Amino acid sequence: MTFNERLNKICAAKNSLVCVGLDVDLKKVPQFILDKKEPQVYFSQAIIDATVEFAAAYKINTAFFEAYGAAGWDAMTKIVRYLPDDVIKIADAKRGDIGNTSKMYAQAFFENLNFDAITINPYLGSDSIAPFLENEEKGAFILCHTTNKGAQDFQKFSNGNKALYEHVAEQAQTWNTRNNCGLVVGATYPDEMKHVRSLAPELPFLVPGLGAQGGDFDLAVQYAIDKNGFGAIFNFSRSILYSSSDKDFAEAAGRTIQQMKNEIIRIKKHLLN
Amino acid sequence: MTFNERLNKICAAKNSLVCVGLDVDLKKVPQFILDKKEPQVYFSQAIIDATVEFAAAYKINTAFFEAYGAAGWDAMTKIVRYLPDDVIKIADAKRGDIGNTSKMYAQAFFENLNFDAITINPYLGSDSIAPFLENEEKGAFILCHTTNKGAQDFQKFSNGNKALYEHVAEQAQTWNTRNNCGLVVGATYPDEMKHVRSLAPELPFLVPGLGAQGGDFDLAVQYAIDKNGFGAIFNFSRSILYSSSDKDFAEAAGRTIQQMKNEIIRIKKHLLN
Repeated sequence: MTFNERLNKICAAKNSLVCVGLDVDLKKVPQFILDKKEPQVYFSQAIIDATVEFAAAYKINTAFFEAYGAAGWDAMTKIVRYLPDDVIKIADAKRGDIGNTSKMYAQAFFENLNFDAITINPYLGSDSIAPFLENEEKGAFILCHTTNKGAQDFQKFSNGNKALYEHVAEQAQTWNTRNNCGLVVGATYPDEMKHVRSLAPELPFLVPGLGAQGGDFDLAVQYAIDKNGFGAIFNFSRSILYSSSDKDFAEAAGRTIQQMKNEIIRIKKHLLN
Repeated sequence: MTFNERLNKICAAKNSLVCVGLDVDLKKVPQFILDKKEPQVYFSQAIIDATVEFAAAYKINTAFFEAYGAAGWDAMTKIVRYLPDDVIKIADAKRGDIGNTSKMYAQAFFENLNFDAITINPYLGSDSIAPFLENEEKGAFILCHTTNKGAQDFQKFSNGNKALYEHVAEQAQTWNTRNNCGLVVGATYPDEMKHVRSLAPELPFLVPGLGAQGGDFDLAVQYAIDKNGFGAIFNFSRSILYSSSDKDFAEAAGRTIQQMKNEIIRIKKHLLN
């Protein structure tokens, strides 16, 4: 089964379009977690246990583990192995390099760590991305339009007819020959998301920017989902992970993800009716 | 001392503009290395011992260590710690993310691993790059024009007056307020390198593409160095590391780097006379 087929299948089976972003910052976890032997692993496993019923995907932000060196990489390895098979496992790594180096990154994330997908920066062009799309069972979400203010610096750079992010969307559509290519499209720029959906009707979107970053739910769901109500997953990191700074952090995370899941389903039903 | 000052000071002291790229691929090292306890560390330390007299900088390609998981990250940590203080230590990591994530990457590479500089992908814009430029002693080389064929896909995307890579060069010049910003400019596109030097006269270049990738030495040195004959380091990875596939790999690497160093100095002297 291709990556994009599997993504939609899991979203349908779990009736969820929610991705949990494991940006595990030890400065933000409840204080008592720091006394645990492997605090990032302990915290993540508790979050996974409390949210897995409601999550279609988990996205592990590599920066938050690399910041703790080899121990952090080891923690990331344990966390991705802890995830069950019926969720999509995304390395939010934003990698991309010349061909022989991208191959090594693909080996790191797809073979060594067994992630299902990875986020990729397109600046180096198609040959930097090809190694991540060779195996149809593994997917790559290409950065198209990001959530931050700086998205306007280069992604909006325009040739008069189209901006760079639109060019990336069009190119990515042509890279989807194995049905395993997707796009990262931030919820904080709904107009741009709408353009991207029209340029790349078949590509799944990984949508950051709801929750802590303040994107609009209604517009994001309206513009991101495809005509069948799939083809998009909405990521929540800080707003789920740090729902409570106390002993009940995992239960609180479970309650938050249910709210997010239900809100997205409600908007989606309203749109499809 | 700012990063850019220190880079030039080291290049002057060592009379070298050569950077050794530690892309340590266990499929390419001499066979007997694989019997060592920590083969990437053993190989790199031998290469460092044989080349350090002639090198101004070392560039560690993170992909080649991540491919081996936490053990690879641990190997990378040992290798960067093994490097002496009188060389520039560059993490060729090509990172870049929204602000709070870029901060974690800066912590990973500058604080945890004590690299002096990192390569950064500019696609996410200025706020994704700012965390890497906060400390004047640490530097960031921004990807501007890369060596690969795919460089033409997006880096050449033009608004009619200028291409994206030129826009990146101009922006990077404005980010150099602490004298610690540089650019990655590939030797395989000499005309583009010439444009970049005119747009960013003060920024040091990290130049890949000589050696295995076949860039032209004369043009690269001519266009990359500044008016004082500094402001550029030329990276060699495969051509130095795999100079011999036998027991004499380190000595052979030492001979290769001397040739590269002397060739660059010869071209530079010719240009400055």
